[in-house]
Amino acid sequence: MAALVTLTTDFGGADGYVGAMKGVIARLAPEARVVDVAHEVPRHDVAHAAWVVRTAWREFPIGTVHVVVVDPGVGGDRAEVVVAVDGHRFVGPDNGVFAYVAAHHDGAYAITSTAFRAPSVAPTFHGRDVFAPAAAALARGLPERLAGPATCLAGALPWPALAVDGRGVVVHVDRWGNLITNLDAAAPAVRIAGRTIAVVATYAAVAPGALLAYRGSSGTLEIAVRDGAAAAALGVGRGAAVEVA
Amino acid sequence: MAALVTLTTDFGGADGYVGAMKGVIARLAPEARVVDVAHEVPRHDVAHAAWVVRTAWREFPIGTVHVVVVDPGVGGDRAEVVVAVDGHRFVGPDNGVFAYVAAHHDGAYAITSTAFRAPSVAPTFHGRDVFAPAAAALARGLPERLAGPATCLAGALPWPALAVDGRGVVVHVDRWGNLITNLDAAAPAVRIAGRTIAVVATYAAVAPGALLAYRGSSGTLEIAVRDGAAAAALGVGRGAAVEVA
Amino acid sequence: MAALVTLTTDFGGADGYVGAMKGVIARLAPEARVVDVAHEVPRHDVAHAAWVVRTAWREFPIGTVHVVVVDPGVGGDRAEVVVAVDGHRFVGPDNGVFAYVAAHHDGAYAITSTAFRAPSVAPTFHGRDVFAPAAAALARGLPERLAGPATCLAGALPWPALAVDGRGVVVHVDRWGNLITNLDAAAPAVRIAGRTIAVVATYAAVAPGALLAYRGSSGTLEIAVRDGAAAAALGVGRGAAVEVA
Repeated sequence: MAALVTLTTDFGGADGYVGAMKGVIARLAPEARVVDVAHEVPRHDVAHAAWVVRTAWREFPIGTVHVVVVDPGVGGDRAEVVVAVDGHRFVGPDNGVFAYVAAHHDGAYAITSTAFRAPSVAPTFHGRDVFAPAAAALARGLPERLAGPATCLAGALPWPALAVDGRGVVVHVDRWGNLITNLDAAAPAVRIAGRTIAVVATYAAVAPGALLAYRGSSGTLEIAVRDGAAAAALGVGRGAAVEVA
Repeated sequence: MAALVTLTTDFGGADGYVGAMKGVIARLAPEARVVDVAHEVPRHDVAHAAWVVRTAWREFPIGTVHVVVVDPGVGGDRAEVVVAVDGHRFVGPDNGVFAYVAAHHDGAYAITSTAFRAPSVAPTFHGRDVFAPAAAALARGLPERLAGPATCLAGALPWPALAVDGRGVVVHVDRWGNLITNLDAAAPAVRIAGRTIAVVATYAAVAPGALLAYRGSSGTLEIAVRDGAAAAALGVGRGAAVEVA
Repeated sequence: MAALVTLTTDFGGADGYVGAMKGVIARLAPEARVVDVAHEVPRHDVAHAAWVVRTAWREFPIGTVHVVVVDPGVGGDRAEVVVAVDGHRFVGPDNGVFAYVAAHHDGAYAITSTAFRAPSVAPTFHGRDVFAPAAAALARGLPERLAGPATCLAGALPWPALAVDGRGVVVHVDRWGNLITNLDAAAPAVRIAGRTIAVVATYAAVAPGALLAYRGSSGTLEIAVRDGAAAAALGVGRGAAVEVA
């Protein structure tokens, strides 16, 4: 089976940047199959991209290469890296986009080898000239340790992957205004913005327009308004404090 | 040839939900080829999704599996179904998303078999845990009748697929504000919002900014403003009354 | 290796039009692999689409078929064409969308052959009924000269692909408000909107919020605000005059 390469970027759907990356991968690894995960990540929003990757990666088969290009520091001094986790490989800038998935990783390598980069690298488009060639090299079967020297990941987010002592934060607000937290899901209720909200099974357990909390599909507690938007209803966003009640 | 699986959702392009579904399909049916149809369906807009599916499905080859996840009742009591129509299979909630395509179907089955569902199903994400595994099972060659017991479809839309007696409604408003109706296209003129509009061949038959009606590419009458938006010009939207004049 | 077919349109992500095109290609050329380049091109914006294609096409392997459907004159008298350039083939309306890539082309043909068109063509949806079948014919291996009679391209843009005498224009504004010009990149500074801006290597060379110019990843000069939007900061858009300083 040909290798899968997933793409997550903040490039949007109106420019040719995603297409250029796909072209590079098709040219360098003709057998690879490219899968769009998300290209409408808000510009430069590293924490948003990190959560998107966390949501999707484990569903893919072992051997998948995940490329993430949300890279406000492109051309600056953050490293370009390949990170190996449980048989998957992640390719992107070392700026925090891998904070959730790489908590326990099996190796991280700076991308310095000429086999993993274009002969000429535009300092404003590493997606095309570094990350796509690196993904193609991995898709062709090159092992990640050939990308370059082993490195320690520096990228981080301002909150832990899982909350400590029942005190957490909203780590992601999705398209529907659902508030996704880093609280462990085994709690009877949650407190946020002065409200205490009972944990139920799913939206249908409450009336339309009502607040609810539930074990989210990614395994942490989430807060929603049925057929509405909890972020707007509670007036809170990412980073808001939340705790087990 | 590997099976095709099309995806139509209201998940948008900024979250990991579409990616999670693609990962499941790639893991469970590695040979399947996944095709994005539309992910920017307005949230919970079942009638919109139903029209999108109607627009696209028949162009695909026999054997294609079409997954539609616009599912405001996820976790509630609407059924999850596979519907067979003319050699195509449709997978999604029984809430009306298949109203146009399943008017004459060859079998509908509730998805209850463990071969068609994830071992553990999150009550808020059936796209990942029910519909993607079901699509993968079909793509691997399992017949739809193995999904579960035969069922009668309950989902419906508030208008018929084709208007009766020359009195219809606007069933879809597309990206450009074109008004797509359920009127049969063989009419010389159409009346909407107090205006009578002649049916012509195409946009170029009228001046820029002028109203026109024409046989739409899906076979029913459409109303447009050349280089403009009929929905705004006429102040009408989906559900508006329209009749043959 | 199966042929690649790239798609660039202004159809957006909420309707079934892109899906219908993919269905046609899958039905007529089952081995072809379809790649989304961009579907959020602003409506009818030929110059925008032309730049998107210029950004992406050369990264793809020889033999790729590039379909571009931004077609305000659909059903009117602009021709439908296949254009051959350096082993790539371009399919779309002759309205300027190929202005950058076809400056030196190896042949252009009107799409008139029944082997390259659907038996019945809706005058409002050539993407489905002309351009997708033509792409499928090419992907199956039919040579472009079988599409129809050789033709001279008429489509053009109001500026040259490369500026003359150091006086150019902004040819594209990307998602981030970066101003992409048609100026050759070998200049020490650039003048636009009364400002003179030094050319540096990349964003990191200036402070956040500062203006910069740099050799863009497509080879011409670009003007940006680090972590900001040059279009808004300078109050200019596409077509604005710019010159080497």
